[in-house]
Amino acid sequence: MRIGIVGAGVQARRRLAAFRPDDRLTAISALNSGDAARLAARYRGEAVSSWLEVVQRDDVDAVIVASPPRSHADIGIAALRAGTHVLCEKPLAATSEEAAAMTTAAATAGRVLHCGFNHRLHPAVVRLREFLASGAFGPVISAMAVYGHGIRDGYESEWRCDPACVSGGQLMEQGIHLVDLVDSMLGPVDRVVAHVGRSCTLPAGLEDEAHLMLGLSGGGVAMVRSSLTQWRNRFLLEVTCRKAILRVEGLGGSYGDETLIIERRTDGPFTTELLEFRGDDQSWRREWQQFHDLVAASAHSATADDAGLRSIVIVEAAYRSASSGQWVKITDGQ
Amino acid sequence: MRIGIVGAGVQARRRLAAFRPDDRLTAISALNSGDAARLAARYRGEAVSSWLEVVQRDDVDAVIVASPPRSHADIGIAALRAGTHVLCEKPLAATSEEAAAMTTAAATAGRVLHCGFNHRLHPAVVRLREFLASGAFGPVISAMAVYGHGIRDGYESEWRCDPACVSGGQLMEQGIHLVDLVDSMLGPVDRVVAHVGRSCTLPAGLEDEAHLMLGLSGGGVAMVRSSLTQWRNRFLLEVTCRKAILRVEGLGGSYGDETLIIERRTDGPFTTELLEFRGDDQSWRREWQQFHDLVAASAHSATADDAGLRSIVIVEAAYRSASSGQWVKITDGQ
Amino acid sequence: MRIGIVGAGVQARRRLAAFRPDDRLTAISALNSGDAARLAARYRGEAVSSWLEVVQRDDVDAVIVASPPRSHADIGIAALRAGTHVLCEKPLAATSEEAAAMTTAAATAGRVLHCGFNHRLHPAVVRLREFLASGAFGPVISAMAVYGHGIRDGYESEWRCDPACVSGGQLMEQGIHLVDLVDSMLGPVDRVVAHVGRSCTLPAGLEDEAHLMLGLSGGGVAMVRSSLTQWRNRFLLEVTCRKAILRVEGLGGSYGDETLIIERRTDGPFTTELLEFRGDDQSWRREWQQFHDLVAASAHSATADDAGLRSIVIVEAAYRSASSGQWVKITDGQ
Amino acid sequence: MRIGIVGAGVQARRRLAAFRPDDRLTAISALNSGDAARLAARYRGEAVSSWLEVVQRDDVDAVIVASPPRSHADIGIAALRAGTHVLCEKPLAATSEEAAAMTTAAATAGRVLHCGFNHRLHPAVVRLREFLASGAFGPVISAMAVYGHGIRDGYESEWRCDPACVSGGQLMEQGIHLVDLVDSMLGPVDRVVAHVGRSCTLPAGLEDEAHLMLGLSGGGVAMVRSSLTQWRNRFLLEVTCRKAILRVEGLGGSYGDETLIIERRTDGPFTTELLEFRGDDQSWRREWQQFHDLVAASAHSATADDAGLRSIVIVEAAYRSASSGQWVKITDGQ
Repeated sequence: MRIGIVGAGVQARRRLAAFRPDDRLTAISALNSGDAARLAARYRGEAVSSWLEVVQRDDVDAVIVASPPRSHADIGIAALRAGTHVLCEKPLAATSEEAAAMTTAAATAGRVLHCGFNHRLHPAVVRLREFLASGAFGPVISAMAVYGHGIRDGYESEWRCDPACVSGGQLMEQGIHLVDLVDSMLGPVDRVVAHVGRSCTLPAGLEDEAHLMLGLSGGGVAMVRSSLTQWRNRFLLEVTCRKAILRVEGLGGSYGDETLIIERRTDGPFTTELLEFRGDDQSWRREWQQFHDLVAASAHSATADDAGLRSIVIVEAAYRSASSGQWVKITDGQ
Repeated sequence: MRIGIVGAGVQARRRLAAFRPDDRLTAISALNSGDAARLAARYRGEAVSSWLEVVQRDDVDAVIVASPPRSHADIGIAALRAGTHVLCEKPLAATSEEAAAMTTAAATAGRVLHCGFNHRLHPAVVRLREFLASGAFGPVISAMAVYGHGIRDGYESEWRCDPACVSGGQLMEQGIHLVDLVDSMLGPVDRVVAHVGRSCTLPAGLEDEAHLMLGLSGGGVAMVRSSLTQWRNRFLLEVTCRKAILRVEGLGGSYGDETLIIERRTDGPFTTELLEFRGDDQSWRREWQQFHDLVAASAHSATADDAGLRSIVIVEAAYRSASSGQWVKITDGQ
Repeated sequence: MRIGIVGAGVQARRRLAAFRPDDRLTAISALNSGDAARLAARYRGEAVSSWLEVVQRDDVDAVIVASPPRSHADIGIAALRAGTHVLCEKPLAATSEEAAAMTTAAATAGRVLHCGFNHRLHPAVVRLREFLASGAFGPVISAMAVYGHGIRDGYESEWRCDPACVSGGQLMEQGIHLVDLVDSMLGPVDRVVAHVGRSCTLPAGLEDEAHLMLGLSGGGVAMVRSSLTQWRNRFLLEVTCRKAILRVEGLGGSYGDETLIIERRTDGPFTTELLEFRGDDQSWRREWQQFHDLVAASAHSATADDAGLRSIVIVEAAYRSASSGQWVKITDGQ
Repeated sequence: MRIGIVGAGVQARRRLAAFRPDDRLTAISALNSGDAARLAARYRGEAVSSWLEVVQRDDVDAVIVASPPRSHADIGIAALRAGTHVLCEKPLAATSEEAAAMTTAAATAGRVLHCGFNHRLHPAVVRLREFLASGAFGPVISAMAVYGHGIRDGYESEWRCDPACVSGGQLMEQGIHLVDLVDSMLGPVDRVVAHVGRSCTLPAGLEDEAHLMLGLSGGGVAMVRSSLTQWRNRFLLEVTCRKAILRVEGLGGSYGDETLIIERRTDGPFTTELLEFRGDDQSWRREWQQFHDLVAASAHSATADDAGLRSIVIVEAAYRSASSGQWVKITDGQ
């Protein structure tokens, strides 16, 4: 495919590194024009001066929206209207209203709108999803999930701490991965109660800590912690089923070896099965392949963009719960 | 000391096995008179026909109340009024009103009323408490705790599933250990939101699953899971501080090796310290020594019986939250 | 059975604690007559003044020889000649000549001579043996085994450091468990090369460190380390087969949770199976049951006493190798 | 530096990826001229038709010898005589005679000859070496090391199984890393006894299994296993000192997270410290920097090329021991 990219940061580089041999960068724009120029040179694309140019070019089949969240809706909707497919980084938009408008635009245009939830494609998570879908271990009773890392020096001056760029803190930016995994694998989520806090010196309104209890429509509960005070990168997703406990720990790299642990229900001795997925992070490459498949199916990717919308709906409900001190219901569709 | 015991089940046997050489069983009673007789024979005490006899004997300095919770208040108050000290198994009573009455009775009688929270005396927990108290790792930001085991065959016919014996399910009976640890080490707890459920076939009103978020007066949050569907005995108490994460895993025996893990905040490499406390469970012996010390101090043990009362107050608040769908405040004193 | 015991130390107490309900201590003797008297009182047997009395009494069906190794042969042979069965602690005797004489005495008398290798009865080892015997994982290629603990204060004044009591150091006393396991499960062993050393201040001739390479008749090799400088109790037995690696780690208690780990040969992801055997050490009870079974079969236990003899033959060969600097062949029978 | 490379396989690619910004590939040759051409194109160097051209060019300051071992001596000596510095992959040469000749050539030419033992630069190994050098944990008593992986499909047809390319099997090719680490960190090694075997279908004379006992001049012993039947990539280097046990496990990537574990000698509870070095393998980059430093010092790198020679001397002694069934002494210098 011929790809345009808006943004030239970490995510743009990750996406470029995951290109298939038949992909080609045609145009790239970014607020930091120097970064855009460098990537353009390296990948033999053209650096252009505005995202509008990127989405309106004839030689762009799909646009990767890798700019800060507050710009997603404008860019995504323009790209979809221009007839390109869109892979947009999470969160899909700054608000659920914007996310819904993007989803509608994709449906109207008949183009793929895919929200980048690469964690779904981590091999341990893929395997977990397969086990759960198979029903081999019985229904889900409870879950516990942790995603966090230690705040880094200078974090306060990054765009993630700029209310002009983002509409939420650690929960909206990173915890949303867990929200999506719980909702799509264990849910749907039908209500939430939450506590959000600021332990580090972030700007008002941007939480660095979130603790959620997510009610699952099947009756179970998922406890979720998303945090900037984890002090080392950590990913945990543990699911208690009727016949076993399944646990994903680690994502490789700085998160430690990626492992799926299955503790089967027994009278003893306790039997545990470990699946270790060592080596490089393949999730970006796999998600990109998935995007290709969606485009090839020429179909509007209902599942995928619902995920982008639903995850924001749930995070917003969590924010409301943190204010009201009550469980907040997730209303249908949103 | 000369000890009377009410009850002849697992707890009675554990308490007897933890006696000091200068302790002597003088009287024991139990609903199951055969069990009482057997223990009396083995430990050279006298089996008597009612708990009233136990608490009223002249040769009893202290009474261990190891009968089901609904009988605790009557027995405990009678014993305190008779001038004996009391070590009462958790939960201290069936309700917070009863627990408050016991606490008052102890104060009036000037006798020790100690609620049996032996988990406080597990060496890894003791060390964790010391670390937290030292302030070396900074203030507490967040905590996560899991206590559970798999439901055993025939559990439905045990007294723990009999509403005539107990006033709550897994949370009141086992999760209360975590509630006490969080409240006494990380708290005080000032509010709670909870979900309780029944995944196994327990009688109505007796939960086998509880998920709690406990608000800490210092601003942090503790997420707690107490469950009968853990499938293997598990104990986890993880505390995130400003400078480190501290984690107790295992309690020895069927819970796996008891370990205190300290993950220090670093830029890398990640440094982790493990303290392994292998060997037999010493908590019963240490708690018994603690009771001796309290008695020796001839003091009313304000701390200890407050713990018995407070933990029930919090559990009851959790039950109310599970009904109302709201955070429930822990009111002062109770 | 009616049991006589020679010795009143740790082993005597362990054996008594493992008695079946139908077993009865009739007579016990020990160099330390106070210890013998105490055990006699506790278990309602009679303390007698010499081991000769124990083995010659009419009311003794079986004798447990739990005295230091240099006394084993005299006591064991006398007991067998007196018509009792014998369970003798390892090493079976001080020398292979003595061990062979005991074995001959048992055959002549038609009585059971069982050498106490309780490690065979640890559940993880039992399971490992079953897996190996099943052939499911293909032939054994290599093995690695570690058994050790840290030297304790005052060790130098224990009988294990007294050449009048023992005929070898850590290898003969503790490493012999590994030698037996390798020989009986992975072997037979047909040659050995060894290094023995003294890192701590033990008497001349009593090694505190032994490193062995054991040649297996099937072509593989086992590397063994037995040591007093392990600094914490450790047990490891790892076997590489054609299709998997199997590893026993821990023995419970101060050795850490007992675990059998199976790493299957795969192209990835790596799959590992853990079997955890938590709880008390059952090996003494199971070995005692095994002894009962042997006696009940009224058979001379060829397997068992061969093990006692063979293990000493191999240890002696290791000592010779350590002197000569060469591989030493294990000659047939011994 | 201006770099010439002989060889265009995995090692050549690794070395190129570790170049500093001020390094430049000028010439590359390989038996597989297509591979050389591809690397030349990618790194903007020139593909030439013979290694002789590479070593004789004017625009080459240093030569990386990344061809099979039997070609190392010819290439390395020619390069050194031509006045270039040499980084040569391990084993330094096919025989100790060749390795000695290379070492002599480097001394004569006054050029750096560095044998590529990148494992020394893994951060956990670096930290282990520092701890040992500090003396903080007392003298080394014993060591145990394992390095292995599972044989891959088609291995038999790789150059590692071609006696025209290599002079040894898994020990010479991979185990030599452990030999070097033991010799340089724990040694020097003064004698060896070994068993080598062929469990897989490799050509005669090329072992896929080696078990070594290495005598350390300080009195301790190191047991080493190098194997193609480990079934998953594994690296273990455990050192028992007087006051602690130190253990490197994993090398990152397919070997699992790289960890340095320190088990301190205590009376209990057991204290263990873990240092985790997560993320990418930095050893190649660090070794390359080390080579730069050696060149900058304009010094003949005595230490480094001794290592290349010594490690082969020890491996050859191990082969002789495997034939003779005796300990073989490592003679001085070689």
